[in-house]
Amino acid sequence: MDDDVPLILTLDESGSNTSTPNEQLDREDLPNENGGSYDLVNDVSSPATGDYHSQQRSARHNWEMNYQEAAIYLQEGENNDKFLTHPKNAKALAAYLFVHNHLFYLMELTTALLLLLLSLCEAPAVPILRLGIYIHATLELFALVVVVFELSMKMRWMGFYTYIRHKRTMVKTCVLLVQFVEAIVVLVRQTSHVRITRALRCIFLVDCRYCGAVRRNLRQIFQSLPPFIDILLLLLFFMVIFAILGFYLFSSNHSDPYFSTLENSLVNLFVLLTTSNFPDVMMPSYSQNPWSCVFFIVYLSIELYFIMNLLLAVVFDTFSDIEKRKFKSLLLHKRTAIQHAYRLLVSKQRPSGISFKQFEGLMRFYTPRMCARERYLTFKALNQSNTALVSLQDFYNFYEVVGLKWKAKRNREHWFDDLPRTAFLIFKGINILVKSRAFQYAMYTVVAVNGIWILIQTFMLQGGNFFPRDVPWSYIVFLTIYGVELLLKTTGLGPIEYLSSGWNLFDFSVTLFAFLGLLALAFNMEPFYFIVVLRPLQLLRLFKLKKRYRNVLDTMFELFPRMASLGLTLLIFYYSFAIVGMEFFSGVVYPNCCNTSTVADAYRWVNHTVGNKTVVEEGYYYLNNFDNILNSFVTLFELTVVNDWYIIMEGVTSQTSHWSRLYFMIFYIVTMVVMTIIVAFILEAFVFRMNYTRKNQGSEEDNGIVLEKEISKEEMAGVIELFRRNCAASETAPLQKVVAQMDKYEQTSMLFLGRRSRTKSDLSMKMYEEEIQEWYEEHSRKEEYQWQEDVFPSGNPMPSSGLRQRSQTVI
Amino acid sequence: MDDDVPLILTLDESGSNTSTPNEQLDREDLPNENGGSYDLVNDVSSPATGDYHSQQRSARHNWEMNYQEAAIYLQEGENNDKFLTHPKNAKALAAYLFVHNHLFYLMELTTALLLLLLSLCEAPAVPILRLGIYIHATLELFALVVVVFELSMKMRWMGFYTYIRHKRTMVKTCVLLVQFVEAIVVLVRQTSHVRITRALRCIFLVDCRYCGAVRRNLRQIFQSLPPFIDILLLLLFFMVIFAILGFYLFSSNHSDPYFSTLENSLVNLFVLLTTSNFPDVMMPSYSQNPWSCVFFIVYLSIELYFIMNLLLAVVFDTFSDIEKRKFKSLLLHKRTAIQHAYRLLVSKQRPSGISFKQFEGLMRFYTPRMCARERYLTFKALNQSNTALVSLQDFYNFYEVVGLKWKAKRNREHWFDDLPRTAFLIFKGINILVKSRAFQYAMYTVVAVNGIWILIQTFMLQGGNFFPRDVPWSYIVFLTIYGVELLLKTTGLGPIEYLSSGWNLFDFSVTLFAFLGLLALAFNMEPFYFIVVLRPLQLLRLFKLKKRYRNVLDTMFELFPRMASLGLTLLIFYYSFAIVGMEFFSGVVYPNCCNTSTVADAYRWVNHTVGNKTVVEEGYYYLNNFDNILNSFVTLFELTVVNDWYIIMEGVTSQTSHWSRLYFMIFYIVTMVVMTIIVAFILEAFVFRMNYTRKNQGSEEDNGIVLEKEISKEEMAGVIELFRRNCAASETAPLQKVVAQMDKYEQTSMLFLGRRSRTKSDLSMKMYEEEIQEWYEEHSRKEEYQWQEDVFPSGNPMPSSGLRQRSQTVI
Repeated sequence: MDDDVPLILTLDESGSNTSTPNEQLDREDLPNENGGSYDLVNDVSSPATGDYHSQQRSARHNWEMNYQEAAIYLQEGENNDKFLTHPKNAKALAAYLFVHNHLFYLMELTTALLLLLLSLCEAPAVPILRLGIYIHATLELFALVVVVFELSMKMRWMGFYTYIRHKRTMVKTCVLLVQFVEAIVVLVRQTSHVRITRALRCIFLVDCRYCGAVRRNLRQIFQSLPPFIDILLLLLFFMVIFAILGFYLFSSNHSDPYFSTLENSLVNLFVLLTTSNFPDVMMPSYSQNPWSCVFFIVYLSIELYFIMNLLLAVVFDTFSDIEKRKFKSLLLHKRTAIQHAYRLLVSKQRPSGISFKQFEGLMRFYTPRMCARERYLTFKALNQSNTALVSLQDFYNFYEVVGLKWKAKRNREHWFDDLPRTAFLIFKGINILVKSRAFQYAMYTVVAVNGIWILIQTFMLQGGNFFPRDVPWSYIVFLTIYGVELLLKTTGLGPIEYLSSGWNLFDFSVTLFAFLGLLALAFNMEPFYFIVVLRPLQLLRLFKLKKRYRNVLDTMFELFPRMASLGLTLLIFYYSFAIVGMEFFSGVVYPNCCNTSTVADAYRWVNHTVGNKTVVEEGYYYLNNFDNILNSFVTLFELTVVNDWYIIMEGVTSQTSHWSRLYFMIFYIVTMVVMTIIVAFILEAFVFRMNYTRKNQGSEEDNGIVLEKEISKEEMAGVIELFRRNCAASETAPLQKVVAQMDKYEQTSMLFLGRRSRTKSDLSMKMYEEEIQEWYEEHSRKEEYQWQEDVFPSGNPMPSSGLRQRSQTVI
Repeated sequence: MDDDVPLILTLDESGSNTSTPNEQLDREDLPNENGGSYDLVNDVSSPATGDYHSQQRSARHNWEMNYQEAAIYLQEGENNDKFLTHPKNAKALAAYLFVHNHLFYLMELTTALLLLLLSLCEAPAVPILRLGIYIHATLELFALVVVVFELSMKMRWMGFYTYIRHKRTMVKTCVLLVQFVEAIVVLVRQTSHVRITRALRCIFLVDCRYCGAVRRNLRQIFQSLPPFIDILLLLLFFMVIFAILGFYLFSSNHSDPYFSTLENSLVNLFVLLTTSNFPDVMMPSYSQNPWSCVFFIVYLSIELYFIMNLLLAVVFDTFSDIEKRKFKSLLLHKRTAIQHAYRLLVSKQRPSGISFKQFEGLMRFYTPRMCARERYLTFKALNQSNTALVSLQDFYNFYEVVGLKWKAKRNREHWFDDLPRTAFLIFKGINILVKSRAFQYAMYTVVAVNGIWILIQTFMLQGGNFFPRDVPWSYIVFLTIYGVELLLKTTGLGPIEYLSSGWNLFDFSVTLFAFLGLLALAFNMEPFYFIVVLRPLQLLRLFKLKKRYRNVLDTMFELFPRMASLGLTLLIFYYSFAIVGMEFFSGVVYPNCCNTSTVADAYRWVNHTVGNKTVVEEGYYYLNNFDNILNSFVTLFELTVVNDWYIIMEGVTSQTSHWSRLYFMIFYIVTMVVMTIIVAFILEAFVFRMNYTRKNQGSEEDNGIVLEKEISKEEMAGVIELFRRNCAASETAPLQKVVAQMDKYEQTSMLFLGRRSRTKSDLSMKMYEEEIQEWYEEHSRKEEYQWQEDVFPSGNPMPSSGLRQRSQTVI
């Protein structure tokens, strides 16, 4: 065992320690805290001071346990899991490992999606997807059983007490129970009853690991609610005052249906808030007395232009504040996780840092797929002092460094450097051409001309068949130009460099689509004609020209994941409202349904015969119904857009009761919340980004995070030796390849580049630079204080459990 | 002359100087820079080194000139006038004094308003205000002549070269010329021609001194334009792409009028951008193929929910940036102004500061209305070192200190402290009662009950006559309670303290209105019934309860001036568009005008006879016309609200040509700009305010700026002596009153409180504290550099003119 100690450790150790290598070799590193909780033999937390215990177990076993626990800590830090749910024993560990893997996550997601998609087939089903009650109820029961299994696994991992204290999981369990009972009732009665609870199915999706972003959005929405509701009350208050005023002023006018009763007055002012019935609502009183417009102008100025904007301001402000606090808590949580991991990784002999051996052990659990070379480079990148050990201060950068993708730095500038002289010159020429400004501007001109051409062509078309049988020559000409450009760029820059730019990728795909469109035209494949229509997208390239657009589009792409998650959040609200709407309003609206209401015209469907011709007078609004979930979604989108939403509301109301208005009003307020938050989010993100750009005006183009590390041949040999002795033979292969490469190019060392794209967190780090230091100090003061609190009053010398308690209070 | 030297100066001087008072007295202070330009005798800038000159003039005369010029500098700093227009000789000075006074400003304003209001009486006039062509053309000519006079005075002040270089004034002159010619043409032809140029009349209002805020808004709008236009182009670009796409997809559907031609497609997508024709625009294609909704959802998501918000983000960002830069430049401008003034005020003998005598001289010109006591207190407040002289560093606070209103600090806590014991106890009791929480909450309860009562009462009313002949008892009960509360508060707090709080003022006025309403009811004065309707406003008091509302309402009041100026800016745009609209579209729209268009229903006016009853079917939209300027304003407001604006557009278009759409589209874009900026402004102001509150969380309640200064009796005597010797006998009266008061209360000194409300500038000062120091350093470095540049290369030792040149480049 003793000669198992890796060479690299002794080599490096000799640099920092004065003891001879041999002395060093004689001792096996012992973990500083063998407080790892997964003592498979005894299944209890082993106290670090239990001398008898720690000597009994082999040091290596101890280490493996520590590595695994440290990896779990780091995962928890990354996922923002509370340390409260940290697995405390071997059983919990097994459950933790079962629950935390992509297969399980996928299972969660598919069952959740299955449950959600069931509403396509249930009672007011989409016609072509209708299923028998037996089938969909059985499917539902099956999915629910799977959810039960998932929940029981989670309970095993968390333990019963943590489980019942975890709010979201408890809500989920309750919903599960209700769904179970209802599904069985449906099966027994063989008919669907009014199941509004189906609206709660969303919680299964929200609880998925993959929907973490949605969960965060929801939390942020709920956190923004208190100030939002305050201002909303102000809004409603003014509405009530104006409703009373309007009722007094206008109800004597009998041709004015909008203010005839106080209820009408209230409803119409609510609708006026959305501007949806303006100016109609004003017209009857305006025609009687022109000065009555003052009432409406004042109302709109106060409510729409002032308080609604105030709402946005308050939400925006809360939002930015929450973003900052979230960033802070996440940062400190990660820091605590790193501290936990660090304490498990340092050895008794060398408590001042983590050696590569320990780091390698950790990484085997943390990122099993990472190859040995990358692990060593990550270690080197962390190790800023260039000694053998990574100190805690260095280890704090773990999350920033671990995401880097490492690549050997190429010595050759172009992909064609190795080609023979003639070919090299040709390609070099193409390269210079492609990179020249003249070429770029020529291409912009071509695109602009193409755009104008398409516009003129479309203007000249007058209905009928737009897709001529023979391909127009202009299409071929422009496509040829784009094809040549694509070819030149690919050869000049090399395919990899060409496709690494988002803009080139865009060019490529648009050209490809245009080519497919050409094929569709040439071979008369009608269903693919729509591709031809995408040609104007070429014009988007013109937006590369201006810096602001580049900025905007870059930010757009950066924002895309968050935008998508916000969209998903909105969809979840849609789903709930769609279910409720379907249960109450399905089949309520149909052609000519609302002839007694004020919006009769919109629902009319009349078949006149004028002379010889049949004229169909269609109001179309009967299409905006809740007859199945897809229709409901479209209807809800129309309600979101707000314009003319009161026609839909009045239509449904005239067929049901006037309480239905509540549904529509609540939906309006909910979407207003979500939309305001989306606006606030876009605002915050852009303003943040622009502030960042302004702050770093001097610095060079933004290329993501790049780190450079050099590895010498001797170091490499040491690492290989370590791996060979330790265990994994397969892992040395890539390392040996690197050595072989060094030999080939006769280098004594090799340069590696670690690269990753910049995330919001990196930007925040830079923006709050100064404050972050304060947070750290405050945090470590609290730590210190907690530490004393934990250790002294109880007299308990067990640091490991102390750590655990502390982490609960810090986060 | 020598014994004219005021005592106070020698008294204080002896403290800081070691020379004997007599030595001091012998010398008359000479201005350090007698570079004041207003040499009334010679009418040339007198060089400071011209020894012969300066000795010839009396020192006193020199001083007066310097005081005046310093006061002008300070005024320029305050008004953000460029030093370029600083009056350079006696003639210019006279013109400057003529132009810079409230009478002149009022004249400017009235002529501008007269010109604007003329459009009420001109050609498509408001019926009751119609005037003959002779009358209004003559009025116009008269107003224009007045403007010519104003402009000539301004030219006298600025000098010809500055005048023609000043853009705004030049534009004004051109507009003036055009208006003149046109007015004469109208008089000659005796009929109005198409006078779109009337839209330019706004410039006369914008150029008014009192409309400085509007001018600043306009500047800010123009500065925000470039990024706005960039994003607008992006918006329009996507619109074109989608229009082409929509044309290809939907024009084959013959029941779909929205996409039948490319022009229709473009117009309808533009309207869709405002959501005004949604979901109607989607319905025909949706009824054919449900999946066509994807086109509209994608379009709205990109255009409305993404790019429009982006627009807001970009404008908001630019806006905040401009606000900060504006604040910076204003701050530095003021600083420069103070430096100019300071150099004119220090004397040759004591170049290290300004003595009170000099300061007093300055104030006589700067704020002639300020009384002697306040002048002295201002001097004391500036003088932080408590020596006789105000150094430049102290003098930099001039603008912050000069606005303070000084009051003797009362020793008595309540207004009734001086009353006899019994009365005192009674009032003290009332005071305690009124200030108690219980009383406040009791009042809130009363207000809430009142509110609910009003609501229920209104709900129970069913049309008809709402104003019963006999006054309802509930009205009297509640009014009595409010009356008692008002009485208690006034007596308990004292009338002055009671009315100094905005909330109490609000209570007071609402109660007063309610009382007037009661009188109206009691004496059956029908026209005043509307006052009764204002009762629900009482409910606003409930918003005192929560801190956030107080914050919001306080901020609202702080914002009010800026909001009003923004509103005025919007009105100016309205005015221009109204004139253009009237010239082109007046009389175009009338009942049943548009029966051939798609919006015929909205313009219909039909008189059915169904059975015995006459049913009037009214579309009312013909009321939204451009027949006179008031109607145009209402129509433009409706266009601003955007909902159903396309009905107005289509109505007008169907009666004129399809180029009319341009007018409406341009108006939409202009209001979008202004509205976005209003939103950005509200956002910026609130976010700024909330950040400020967050930054100063620890500090006490915000009470405005308060400064405390003590004056001893001896000081007072010194000041009185100074004034008596100097000139103004009338000015010593208030001072002597103070001394008398001191005698009465047997005090040796008296405490004064200076108070003013906090302005945005104060908040900014605190927010940018750190940066301001940087700006100052940068500024003074530049100054230094400029100074060397100015002085050495030319070898010109004339600091005064050097100063002048410098100021031009700094700002």
